[in-house]
Amino acid sequence: MTVELISVGTEILLGNIVNTNAAYLAEQCAALGLSCYYQTVVGDNEERMEATIRQAVSRSDVVILTGGLGPTKDDLTKEVTAKVFGRELYEDPHSRARIEEYFRRGHAGKVTDNNWKQAMVPEGAKVIDNDNGTAPGLILEGEAIAILIPGPPNEMKPMFDKKIAPYLNALQPEGIYSRMVKICSVGESRAETMIADLMDQQTNPTIAPYAKTGEVHLRVTAKAKSEADAEALMEPMLQELKSRFGDRIYTMEEDVTLEEAVVRLLEEKHFSVTTAESCTGGLLAGRLMNVPGASSVYKEGFITYSNEAKERLLNVNRETLVQYGAVSPQTAIEMAQGVAKVAGADAAISVTGIAGPGGGTKEKPVGLVYIGCYVNGRVHVEECFFHGNREKNRESAVARALTFLRNELLHE
Amino acid sequence: MTVELISVGTEILLGNIVNTNAAYLAEQCAALGLSCYYQTVVGDNEERMEATIRQAVSRSDVVILTGGLGPTKDDLTKEVTAKVFGRELYEDPHSRARIEEYFRRGHAGKVTDNNWKQAMVPEGAKVIDNDNGTAPGLILEGEAIAILIPGPPNEMKPMFDKKIAPYLNALQPEGIYSRMVKICSVGESRAETMIADLMDQQTNPTIAPYAKTGEVHLRVTAKAKSEADAEALMEPMLQELKSRFGDRIYTMEEDVTLEEAVVRLLEEKHFSVTTAESCTGGLLAGRLMNVPGASSVYKEGFITYSNEAKERLLNVNRETLVQYGAVSPQTAIEMAQGVAKVAGADAAISVTGIAGPGGGTKEKPVGLVYIGCYVNGRVHVEECFFHGNREKNRESAVARALTFLRNELLHE
Repeated sequence: MTVELISVGTEILLGNIVNTNAAYLAEQCAALGLSCYYQTVVGDNEERMEATIRQAVSRSDVVILTGGLGPTKDDLTKEVTAKVFGRELYEDPHSRARIEEYFRRGHAGKVTDNNWKQAMVPEGAKVIDNDNGTAPGLILEGEAIAILIPGPPNEMKPMFDKKIAPYLNALQPEGIYSRMVKICSVGESRAETMIADLMDQQTNPTIAPYAKTGEVHLRVTAKAKSEADAEALMEPMLQELKSRFGDRIYTMEEDVTLEEAVVRLLEEKHFSVTTAESCTGGLLAGRLMNVPGASSVYKEGFITYSNEAKERLLNVNRETLVQYGAVSPQTAIEMAQGVAKVAGADAAISVTGIAGPGGGTKEKPVGLVYIGCYVNGRVHVEECFFHGNREKNRESAVARALTFLRNELLHE
Repeated sequence: MTVELISVGTEILLGNIVNTNAAYLAEQCAALGLSCYYQTVVGDNEERMEATIRQAVSRSDVVILTGGLGPTKDDLTKEVTAKVFGRELYEDPHSRARIEEYFRRGHAGKVTDNNWKQAMVPEGAKVIDNDNGTAPGLILEGEAIAILIPGPPNEMKPMFDKKIAPYLNALQPEGIYSRMVKICSVGESRAETMIADLMDQQTNPTIAPYAKTGEVHLRVTAKAKSEADAEALMEPMLQELKSRFGDRIYTMEEDVTLEEAVVRLLEEKHFSVTTAESCTGGLLAGRLMNVPGASSVYKEGFITYSNEAKERLLNVNRETLVQYGAVSPQTAIEMAQGVAKVAGADAAISVTGIAGPGGGTKEKPVGLVYIGCYVNGRVHVEECFFHGNREKNRESAVARALTFLRNELLHE
């Protein structure tokens, strides 16, 4: 069964707001096994909205429209959809009573005449009560199914979850199930090359690569009557990916991040970790600490931008800084060793580099970064070259540092 | 002139990622005076992509496509657009050389055969160099103009700003010029109330508010034959905004960020700054250090998650931690004073709070954050309540901390 999303709103067309509704609905629809081939954004314009709805209804089984259900003249979604379905509008006494009740409870100031517009519903439509606002949701069944949901996320989400999702679920014979395989230590093209033959053969399940900074995510998707059948279809592919990528797979769970995988690994080993950052300036620590409960392994960290701070806080030797420079493997090593000692941590990561745009030389160009990794007495260093802007170089260095720490922990 | 956005990517259709590219491009196109009536998302499917591009080309003057320019077999945007425009692909030696150079600089691992796919360009296309990745941008002029831009935001944004925007501006008969007014210390609804009358009267120039985390951006746009005419039209509106928002305006420059405004203010005053972070765990320092040249004011900083680290590194009194807790105005004050002393800095910001999801109590709920600000011997503290998830709460705390520091510096 195919679904198509239409978001109505001039504020999305103008870039005033990011279309998070579409992302939410897309994810929920995918989880319900619906195939979504199109998302469209259109403004509060009758002609363009009508053309958009007609096209969607002609090519998809279900069309979900969000927005444009407000009380003002600009709000046209219901009127235009009713026109496309050849239905008249009438005032629904139940919806009118709910709007009266909503205002009586003092949720939304004083009721104004145009609020009754929201009680008008198309003939034959299923009316979906809105527990968090005045505009009801609507389902029209015809050539295709049109589902109209109010645009504010705090009305849209509960209405979809509690009322629309069960309705959609009941329509379906077969579901789509997917599994995520997240990989670090391998670039996008390399990963793609490593699975080219699997992608050539794919039918059910399919496999799709997504490039992230310093990571590649592979989504394996199967269509089947039950989740168990889908798992059985996906299992051989998942095993094959495991044998090809080995421990470069850091998780096979949808919502586990690289930093979370690293924190979990530290927890397993009962290791604490600390950080000493120069060019990344706190971003590495910030990413580690985005993991809820990271405080179990991370107690403190240092940002040492100046040489003086590297000496005083981390006990990096002045001679090292003078002889090799702040951006050098020697300094990265001493930073990692020094911060581990100062913080009394089992593991430590140091980052020193030239993020740009200034500060580069012929010998040490912008994008050169040294990462030191100390684990349980041993220390290693990695030299990296990044080729982005300042922000991207720092982001890449953080991803590389997490991967490096993970590798060192795995081989510890 | 009308523009239409097509975002290519199964990960958007599946809700894996939010379509922030469309929001960015929509805002930039609106600023250029282009009318955007449609945004579409389509997946990596040849047939549906072709239908979508044909329709867009038939109804809009300019079609901007993002995504699907990667090196993998899935990436079809260029191939399908070339087909719609009736153009063959050939290998562009210039683009091939740039890809070679990109890999030679060690940015992206080892070059693999499929990377050369990115050097293939449609006949007659303008090739737009990508300074942050391997896929060049492309402009095809025909029935309409198709502009192809790589999907990763760190490649898309600079390419659009530096190369596509000037191209689009040159196509227009009348110039559209805009000025940005960036405001902190005022919430979105309050800012909108403060300019409601200006928005009611607007014709030329117009004014459009954009809400950001902890900030509001107002874009003033004028249509005129020359930039000087546009400036003359905008000047009274800009003066009016200055008189209404005063020093809550932190910049009137398009690409100056709040952290950059803070760094510039510190430089003006010849003040150094340091940070002591608990719940934000390095993100505040990370944001300050995203400003090129931040090293002139920022030498070192501390992440002190554990109480022990707050005591040992920042000299917070144990009694304070025991009596008031780590999340308290007293602790925030001692952290700010302590870190200023340890780092020998003129200014210091401390952040301690409960980012969630765990750790909240009835007295100290998730989202409670104390920010301490030390400037030149004086210290103040702010209590904040945020209502997002962990990530959003930390982001809000960082924005609030920057605003707080800015206010203290202004009134120093």
